[in-house]
Amino acid sequence: MSSEAKRLVPLEWAGDHLRLLDQTRLPVEEVYLRQTTVQQVWEAIRHLQVRGAPAIGMAAAYGLYLGVRESTAGNFADFWRHVEEQADYLASSRPTAVNLFWALDRVKARVRQEEGQPIEEIKQAVLAEALAIQEEDERVCRAIGENLLTLLQDGTGVLTHCNAGSLATAAYGTATAPFYLAKERGWNLRVYADETRPVLQGSRLTAYELQRAGIDVTLICDNMAATVMAQGRVQAVVVGTDRVAANGDVANKIGTYGVAVLAHAHGIPFYVAAPFSSIDLDTPTGAEIPIEERPAEEITHGLGKQVAPDGIKVYNPSFDVTPARLITAIVTETGIYKPEELAGLRK
Amino acid sequence: MSSEAKRLVPLEWAGDHLRLLDQTRLPVEEVYLRQTTVQQVWEAIRHLQVRGAPAIGMAAAYGLYLGVRESTAGNFADFWRHVEEQADYLASSRPTAVNLFWALDRVKARVRQEEGQPIEEIKQAVLAEALAIQEEDERVCRAIGENLLTLLQDGTGVLTHCNAGSLATAAYGTATAPFYLAKERGWNLRVYADETRPVLQGSRLTAYELQRAGIDVTLICDNMAATVMAQGRVQAVVVGTDRVAANGDVANKIGTYGVAVLAHAHGIPFYVAAPFSSIDLDTPTGAEIPIEERPAEEITHGLGKQVAPDGIKVYNPSFDVTPARLITAIVTETGIYKPEELAGLRK
Repeated sequence: MSSEAKRLVPLEWAGDHLRLLDQTRLPVEEVYLRQTTVQQVWEAIRHLQVRGAPAIGMAAAYGLYLGVRESTAGNFADFWRHVEEQADYLASSRPTAVNLFWALDRVKARVRQEEGQPIEEIKQAVLAEALAIQEEDERVCRAIGENLLTLLQDGTGVLTHCNAGSLATAAYGTATAPFYLAKERGWNLRVYADETRPVLQGSRLTAYELQRAGIDVTLICDNMAATVMAQGRVQAVVVGTDRVAANGDVANKIGTYGVAVLAHAHGIPFYVAAPFSSIDLDTPTGAEIPIEERPAEEITHGLGKQVAPDGIKVYNPSFDVTPARLITAIVTETGIYKPEELAGLRK
Repeated sequence: MSSEAKRLVPLEWAGDHLRLLDQTRLPVEEVYLRQTTVQQVWEAIRHLQVRGAPAIGMAAAYGLYLGVRESTAGNFADFWRHVEEQADYLASSRPTAVNLFWALDRVKARVRQEEGQPIEEIKQAVLAEALAIQEEDERVCRAIGENLLTLLQDGTGVLTHCNAGSLATAAYGTATAPFYLAKERGWNLRVYADETRPVLQGSRLTAYELQRAGIDVTLICDNMAATVMAQGRVQAVVVGTDRVAANGDVANKIGTYGVAVLAHAHGIPFYVAAPFSSIDLDTPTGAEIPIEERPAEEITHGLGKQVAPDGIKVYNPSFDVTPARLITAIVTETGIYKPEELAGLRK
């Protein structure tokens, strides 16, 4: 079996239904859901069976197709109303997921372009747009991986945090893309995956998908990253991002900022894998990015049993902001940028 | 009820038995064990119902008394053989715990001093020595706390890692001692407790004992420490130690080194609370301190359910070494030292 064949994908269109990996069952079971209705997709997004901004967007686009493919609308106005209803419904599944709205808007724009075509053809255009979103995401991830690979060498140890992996995207992931491409060309990268408390995306997802692809991955607790660096086990850090501000500040999963400080202190380059679409030139600096706080229970009860006293006060920020000065390069599908170069990209 | 009365102690002599808090039931239940035999104490040490170097030593000393108090030896030679048997048995409960051997050796030395006294009086001397060990540890902890308190102010935010707390000592703890003393004098310190993966001594123990004493404590995941520092929430870090080398390098629970790097990067003082006995002038530098690796299951399964894939490779170092250059001061019961001053203490 080729390494390609073993790569996990979070979802794919299977002719007449959406085949979706239930990520809440990982890392213990690999269960695929057969989704034939928009309600099923809504539930999957709501309950984090699919997660990661790109994957959520793709799921929503396929969900919109499932929601309108049985439409009996006889004219465009009726069909459009149906499309908007279903899109609004899907948008309510996870109201803070920007990529969800982006994907739905993109499919809706395609529907408007098709006005005047037969309804059955417009339905096919909806599916075609969903497929196009997924194909483009795969191309973006692969290009990010190719660019990152120019910054690494065979034998390099690389630390990653959270899951900016295949499971969050169409394929390859963003931060993990160079690991898959290195594997394809026979390189031996040694990956260290932070477990990423409190929700453990690193141990549940990153360690799972990389191990399954035959990549050399070692799981550590977040507080072991400094020791791994001091021992010379890693020569680079690669992480993903939720949003990059115009000044090069990067928002990502809590813990990223600490890893960046540690990398800087150890003279280790810190790379951010970022689809160009995640660069938000309308956000001047990281200070303008709101930091969501998550429920205390993720820390006190999130691992199967109670591990902290009743009523304990908890601080549980979901994200942090890594300042541009700690970032060696921001690596997109279009090229490798120093953080201070981003502002000049506004044309 | 005074704040004094609410302070947890891990063990105390209760007239005719050892009353021992079962720390494996924390933070969900506060259960005290009534220990009347040396076998019970052996089990309690082996199964981590009592943990923390000073507390283990004290438990062993009381255990030795329980092991010999029924001795029917008619002469010192027979009694001494009995003492040695029981001490060897207790030493086998946790063969890597240096304080365990230290406490047993100290009680044995006392027995030898008493040679010639009636056996029943020697038995009472064994108990007296165990009580003296506990009283001295409480005095040491209190003095460390007084010294640390001169480095803090009312209103200070303080981050701590792992549990160098009351639960590990006779009372007060080492790193936690200033928190209890501040509470006694009406100061409002704000303590941030790292949960301390993989075994969660921070959430299970430190958060528990401080909350129970009415101290303002906030639990965070280890990877949130950098954000807490960047946000100006803490003005000092205080940690404990297992061993301090002659050059001022400090071995402590995994994650301590990372916290020290982060504190340094944020200009926050980093204090190590260290009983003078933990300074090992025969160890030249931290490089000579062996780093034990612990089982993978602590990371993959340690919290009640499986959180990582089957067969994943894990790196699980139990300790790390913080170099002297990152340490602002080492605070003992005899005074406050800069790390580079330790070597001069050899007299």
